[in-house]
Amino acid sequence: MLKKLLFNAIFHFHAQPFSVRCNIVFLLLHHFHVTAAKLLYDFLTAHLKKLMSDEKCSAEKVTEMEDVITQMDNYTQQELADLFVKYNVKSPSTGNDLTPPTSFNLMFQTSIGPGGNMPGYLRPETAQGMFLNFKRLLEFNQGKLPFGAAQIGNSFRNEISPRSGLIRVREFTMAEIEHFVDPNEKVHPKFSNVADLEITLFSSKAQTSGQSAQIMRLGDAVEQGVINNSVLGYFIGRIYLYLIKVGLSKDKVRFRQHMDNEMAHYACDCWDAESKTSYGWIETVGCADRSCYDLSCHSRATKVPLVAEKPLKEPISFYLNVVQFEPNKGAIGMAYKKDAKLALEYLAVCDECYISDQEKLLSEKGEFSFETEGKTFTLTKDMVSVRRFQKSLHVQEIVPNVIEPSFGIGRIMYSIFEHSFHIRQGDEQRTYFSFPATVAPYKCSILPLSHNQEFVPFVHQLSEAMTRNGVSHKVDDSSGSIGRRYARSDEIGVAFGITVDFDTVNKTPHTATLRDRDSMRQIRAEVAELPEIVRDLANGTLMWAEVERKYPIFEGQETSRKDDEI
Amino acid sequence: MLKKLLFNAIFHFHAQPFSVRCNIVFLLLHHFHVTAAKLLYDFLTAHLKKLMSDEKCSAEKVTEMEDVITQMDNYTQQELADLFVKYNVKSPSTGNDLTPPTSFNLMFQTSIGPGGNMPGYLRPETAQGMFLNFKRLLEFNQGKLPFGAAQIGNSFRNEISPRSGLIRVREFTMAEIEHFVDPNEKVHPKFSNVADLEITLFSSKAQTSGQSAQIMRLGDAVEQGVINNSVLGYFIGRIYLYLIKVGLSKDKVRFRQHMDNEMAHYACDCWDAESKTSYGWIETVGCADRSCYDLSCHSRATKVPLVAEKPLKEPISFYLNVVQFEPNKGAIGMAYKKDAKLALEYLAVCDECYISDQEKLLSEKGEFSFETEGKTFTLTKDMVSVRRFQKSLHVQEIVPNVIEPSFGIGRIMYSIFEHSFHIRQGDEQRTYFSFPATVAPYKCSILPLSHNQEFVPFVHQLSEAMTRNGVSHKVDDSSGSIGRRYARSDEIGVAFGITVDFDTVNKTPHTATLRDRDSMRQIRAEVAELPEIVRDLANGTLMWAEVERKYPIFEGQETSRKDDEI
Repeated sequence: MLKKLLFNAIFHFHAQPFSVRCNIVFLLLHHFHVTAAKLLYDFLTAHLKKLMSDEKCSAEKVTEMEDVITQMDNYTQQELADLFVKYNVKSPSTGNDLTPPTSFNLMFQTSIGPGGNMPGYLRPETAQGMFLNFKRLLEFNQGKLPFGAAQIGNSFRNEISPRSGLIRVREFTMAEIEHFVDPNEKVHPKFSNVADLEITLFSSKAQTSGQSAQIMRLGDAVEQGVINNSVLGYFIGRIYLYLIKVGLSKDKVRFRQHMDNEMAHYACDCWDAESKTSYGWIETVGCADRSCYDLSCHSRATKVPLVAEKPLKEPISFYLNVVQFEPNKGAIGMAYKKDAKLALEYLAVCDECYISDQEKLLSEKGEFSFETEGKTFTLTKDMVSVRRFQKSLHVQEIVPNVIEPSFGIGRIMYSIFEHSFHIRQGDEQRTYFSFPATVAPYKCSILPLSHNQEFVPFVHQLSEAMTRNGVSHKVDDSSGSIGRRYARSDEIGVAFGITVDFDTVNKTPHTATLRDRDSMRQIRAEVAELPEIVRDLANGTLMWAEVERKYPIFEGQETSRKDDEI
Repeated sequence: MLKKLLFNAIFHFHAQPFSVRCNIVFLLLHHFHVTAAKLLYDFLTAHLKKLMSDEKCSAEKVTEMEDVITQMDNYTQQELADLFVKYNVKSPSTGNDLTPPTSFNLMFQTSIGPGGNMPGYLRPETAQGMFLNFKRLLEFNQGKLPFGAAQIGNSFRNEISPRSGLIRVREFTMAEIEHFVDPNEKVHPKFSNVADLEITLFSSKAQTSGQSAQIMRLGDAVEQGVINNSVLGYFIGRIYLYLIKVGLSKDKVRFRQHMDNEMAHYACDCWDAESKTSYGWIETVGCADRSCYDLSCHSRATKVPLVAEKPLKEPISFYLNVVQFEPNKGAIGMAYKKDAKLALEYLAVCDECYISDQEKLLSEKGEFSFETEGKTFTLTKDMVSVRRFQKSLHVQEIVPNVIEPSFGIGRIMYSIFEHSFHIRQGDEQRTYFSFPATVAPYKCSILPLSHNQEFVPFVHQLSEAMTRNGVSHKVDDSSGSIGRRYARSDEIGVAFGITVDFDTVNKTPHTATLRDRDSMRQIRAEVAELPEIVRDLANGTLMWAEVERKYPIFEGQETSRKDDEI
């Protein structure tokens, strides 16, 4: 059970499936361990809190356990194992003993090249590629914030127990947007476009206090601080509009805020778009404000600043307090010869806090030591001093914050399937998928009423015109009554159906019928017009209701359906 | 410069990379070893042929080497290593000794699950998933041949020396079509649509005889048997049309037939679409007639027949000669108790040839033996007999043949970049990509002539209408002359550019200019009309020449360009 909890963790991840660059691997390994460990801490904490709530628990014991909870982060693997034994933690489902915590890498490892000694990992998220390319992306946007980058691709996680069809899998498709903003200007100019949406929000406060989710105007949620800022709010609105557009039911979509104890260590606010399915509420899209976490980590590891420059509106200068080492190159060179360069490089990248500490040593002991690239250096007062001054800048350097909507494509598809699945009233055998025309894999069926050869040229004409108009369609000229073929077309969610009948052949202008899958209503229109009508319906620029207003309603072919069924 | 530009490519990845099912893994391992070994054989064969062509080589030696060449397939790894030493094979580039051949798996291995003892492989091609799903795909097509399935996704191969930018990589995107046909009806009904295409073909005969590639009418090539059949011919035509449509140059595309000794063991004819680049002619699309190889292999490994049923046109019955074992279940059960079931299962799947051999043993020696699932059985005359009879069938079972066009997306993209890269006449600094509008990542730039606030509403109006029409575009309101911004837009291959100028603001109806990237010619049209003009240009339903005929030509903004450049 513990393992189940531990390894069922869902992470948000995303770029090139291999991540062999060391710093990415390190960051990801770190991140995955941190996240997995957090679940372990939560599990133990919950157990201790339960013990503490027992009336028989002595005050002394309570204090001891409170101490354990406070220090949770600092225990080693062995110490954690001991705590599990000490506090007699059992499996909540079976009451069995637990195995001690073990380290388990959620990233798949392989080896690259013929020698087999160059390890590689399959990426567990796509995001990092975009962070690594930040400088190039910024340049592509002429150096200006805000801007966004998006990527779709496969990710791989060694889930301990993959299950639930498309819901929990070891390889999956993710689509991620990284929207980079100035942390001082977290206001989205287009927020007003989505501010009036009424969305079901399940705030962390509501979850903690046992309240239920409530429908809120998005604008109010941002104003009242339920959602941290309007950039995050804007993306929540757009995610909602997207999910509804691709076919999720309004009443089966909600946004749930992460509680403080489940929020990833890098996030300052995070909302999951959840979809209600037969498996319960499942996360389909995560929308996190990752603040400046990723760019800062990459900067630190690579010593390459990942910043944007912000021109100051007023032409006044911006003063920066600078603290830096002032090396005496000659003296260091004399002392360390060809290694001097290493020492100078080291001194150049030290931060203010470190410099102040060494300055103290210099004044107290007259020297300080450090190690770099495997060599040890001891610098004396005559080799280095500390310089403090003000620098005037005309631009301000900013580490952008990142808002990250992260879409689990498989889960969204699964939700579409569940939410779109219907049964015709009064006929359990007749099921259909109500895929919106814009996402239906097939937009239209073309059905000749029978095998009569006179229908063939019209079927060809329609099919060719559809191909020309980029409309995916399916000709079904198999035997079977028209009603049965409609049922077959509905079953796979084809949005519309055109039937070529005897009126098509015998009357001019040649017309055929067009049927809407959901309402099963039909109109008649000219064969020459139909492909463009379907194209516009499929692109979402024309609605069925408009088609019904413009063309005569047709009733007939399907009336004798019942008799035709097997 | 060229290279720098070329590596800025952006990719889209899709589909499910793991292939853990045993039989797929086995087939792929086998296939990839065969392919790699073939390279080794070719290398040794070439060396031997060179030795044989030497006048000093004795007739005896020649015969010996001819024997080696004939038996090449049958040598063990050690025997091959000995042959390399015996015939003194050296590195062709350095003349150094060679290390003995070693086994090297081109598939990346990893382990799945927490225990780490379930090996998994990253798939080296996407095709196998479609073969495994053959039954379902056939059902989806109402049991009828021919039909096709297509898939796009990542594949992974542990290349020994990845190089040449996007050309030889360890992870890449493939798009594959598997077109299943009745082997007795290898005729494509739409072949006439492509029969008149004039395509550069480099047949195996031309390659062997040292002739050059020649331009041929596709219809003639099929008729003369240069291309094996019209289904293969149809796909060669469609691949050609596709490559030209996405931006490859006609004079830099050819189809090269595989020579007998390079053809994969499963193929009966194979043509590669090759593209001429600075790395030479590179394969971008393979188009193979894989015959019934894959379906037969999967059938054999899984004992599940992967066949289509062909209804016979005449209502007469189809007689099949059946030869099968007729086991005496009681006698076998007495002799082998609970293992009897294994023997019966074994007997049920034996083929005619094997049965006849055993029948002979039965009559000569009164018994025959076999081994299955690790157990040995000896059956006597009273336990089994052979029955021959005729069975009448109303349908014929067919193992479909497969035509497989397989697209290397990265290589096609690379070729687009090279073939589309141009330099403006007389200005080396000014480069552009002539991406066809249908594939250009951005269809249109929107450029206000200057920072004047009066332009802003028109820029917004245009941008919003483009979004509504699904046209990807880029607003460039940065400082810089209009000429410089056009140059920047051309550099990344934006197909068209709209400029909002003072005439847009001051005159009614409001008009703006539209510029074609390749010709740099401009017209003036109403702001309200422009988004739909660009949409139709981008969809390929409207040509620039038509636009020029319909709207007044505009000349002006760019004339002072030279002065604006840095």
